[in-house]
Amino acid sequence: AFTRGLQTVTLIPGDGIGPEISAAVVKIFEAAKAPIQWEERNVTAIKGPGGKWMIPPEAKESMDRSKIGLKGPLKTPIAAGHPSMNLLLRKTFDLYANVRPCVSIEGYKTPYTNVNLVTIRENTEGEYSGIEHVIVDGVVQSIKLITEEASQRIAEYAFEYARNNQRTSVTAVHKANIMRMSDGLFLRKCREVAENYKDVKFTEMYLDTVCLNMVQDPTQFDVLVMPNLYGDILSDLCAGLIGGLGVTPSGNIGANGVAIFESVHGTAPDIAGLDLANPTALLLSAVMMLRHMGLHGHAAKIEASCYDTIRDKKVLTKDLGGNSKCSEFTSEICRRIQDMD
Amino acid sequence: AFTRGLQTVTLIPGDGIGPEISAAVVKIFEAAKAPIQWEERNVTAIKGPGGKWMIPPEAKESMDRSKIGLKGPLKTPIAAGHPSMNLLLRKTFDLYANVRPCVSIEGYKTPYTNVNLVTIRENTEGEYSGIEHVIVDGVVQSIKLITEEASQRIAEYAFEYARNNQRTSVTAVHKANIMRMSDGLFLRKCREVAENYKDVKFTEMYLDTVCLNMVQDPTQFDVLVMPNLYGDILSDLCAGLIGGLGVTPSGNIGANGVAIFESVHGTAPDIAGLDLANPTALLLSAVMMLRHMGLHGHAAKIEASCYDTIRDKKVLTKDLGGNSKCSEFTSEICRRIQDMD
Ligand SMILES: CC(C)[C@H](C(=O)O)[C@@H](O)C(=O)O
Ligand SMILES: CC(C)[C@H](C(=O)O)[C@@H](O)C(=O)O
Repeated sequence: AFTRGLQTVTLIPGDGIGPEISAAVVKIFEAAKAPIQWEERNVTAIKGPGGKWMIPPEAKESMDRSKIGLKGPLKTPIAAGHPSMNLLLRKTFDLYANVRPCVSIEGYKTPYTNVNLVTIRENTEGEYSGIEHVIVDGVVQSIKLITEEASQRIAEYAFEYARNNQRTSVTAVHKANIMRMSDGLFLRKCREVAENYKDVKFTEMYLDTVCLNMVQDPTQFDVLVMPNLYGDILSDLCAGLIGGLGVTPSGNIGANGVAIFESVHGTAPDIAGLDLANPTALLLSAVMMLRHMGLHGHAAKIEASCYDTIRDKKVLTKDLGGNSKCSEFTSEICRRIQDMD
Repeated sequence: AFTRGLQTVTLIPGDGIGPEISAAVVKIFEAAKAPIQWEERNVTAIKGPGGKWMIPPEAKESMDRSKIGLKGPLKTPIAAGHPSMNLLLRKTFDLYANVRPCVSIEGYKTPYTNVNLVTIRENTEGEYSGIEHVIVDGVVQSIKLITEEASQRIAEYAFEYARNNQRTSVTAVHKANIMRMSDGLFLRKCREVAENYKDVKFTEMYLDTVCLNMVQDPTQFDVLVMPNLYGDILSDLCAGLIGGLGVTPSGNIGANGVAIFESVHGTAPDIAGLDLANPTALLLSAVMMLRHMGLHGHAAKIEASCYDTIRDKKVLTKDLGGNSKCSEFTSEICRRIQDMD
């Protein structure tokens, strides 16, 4: 993935406001002289040989080479049987860990302050197995599948993450009091893995208790690891605590360095093309990406400029409480980056 | 269930602080001259013929006669194989609806104000089916069971509740984008039932979106109806918004008027017997019970006295931010009730 000292990243601008906020990130990366070369691709699924939905070969091939993607919001086409693009991407690249740091942003008022936690969601199995049956008329079952392998893999990821990011505790979130075998297996694997990370504190907590405690005092949490559906819920809940999906970054991590970073908000078709979108979530996702690539200096510079701009409150997009355009917000961040040099 | 103009209620004081807070409720009911006759019973499960866990016959028989129970916190004994008492009670009396009004309490500071919503949880199936298998070594499945019958029953309960409690909207909470068949069936039933309640607004929302929106602005929600696990999570989350389980009432409703009202906090063994417990959650559950029994006048009087005591801030238990004992808090509520006469 190296060309002339530059690392290639597959850029998936996406739909709606996707292209605008992607352009904003590209501009900010230029200002920061990030050694990135973008390879723009469209991932909207097509019907492959045999009628199976797949992402277009040019996109797959780019990701296979670059290993790293940055992705804006995608709309799932309404064609019958079209799969969720999010699910298809997770599957295609076996992106087994969804990582969402939720950190309070100074100057952006929410009911909570000093939130600083990370949700780590198992992204490949559990309630998302896709296996369902009609047993008899009016009786339906869905199967939640938990494997030792996937549980161990995500637990290890969580502890590695904690260790490498100066975090001190990992909480396994479960309902093993009800789903004794499936959540029980997940929990057992977390406990086993914890044994190998004595430097990281391990706790376990019921999902309902986590939700209750989370809205009462989110500052008590650090790294949380959990099966797929619980992660779907908690990651959105926690995003809400710090201001919503417009300011929350996300990364989907696979094996061997493969990863796609993305904003998880919608395509906002109502404001698409109007230069009103807020690029923060995609930009902070791109900052996560830089750290994943080992480019910590560039990450720190961009992140600080983004946070400073928000704290300063002078140039903000509408959703952040200001009157500025996406391009003005972007320029302000670029200006601050250049001022740092 | 009528004796000399009195209605019988089965009182299950429970463990830890259970007896103290139950005594507080009994005292407050006396002050309010509530036409209730208590029949105290112990429900801790015993091993019945054939080795099956069951609640003791005297408790079962009392509930079968009175139809109405008021229950403090129970500890699940640690004897091997002992079932969760909560689950056993729900099952024994087919208490299919868990109802939790979450209403902000004036004078009790939380990050949110003006919360006024009700979660209605399907209490009998879904992820709580108890059906699990090891498929092969290291691969486990849990089965989520959704039936037309239970989905229809809970949907009808939710709409009836909305209509009878001057509420204007019902939101079905689901992940039918992922569990298309099971949550799909649940959602379809909600839609069908909604057709018969044109006076109540019906909306549907993904569980993750509900969690996100809930912590950003809970005032947008009214009645929420959902499958078992989602209800487990959301009911605790919403309790957290208004101050936690110490101030949140709960009712478990079955067919033909059968119901058990309960505080859902723990037994707090550390403060048991010290006259320090807060009886609010059990008292507000008892108020729900009075309304369920049609005793609206008594309910209103007790509820107002409880809320006034909290708003007034002069006589509060420790967990509510005061220095008073359980008995003092209780007497203050009684005094206010008597002042109303
Ligand atoms: C779009 C949907 C399939 C997805 C999910 O449920 O996982 C979304 O909620 C997410 O968290 O990425
Ligand atoms: C104690 C446990 C079995 C129970 C549940 O998961 O339903 C509890 O969390 C509840 O909400 O009543």
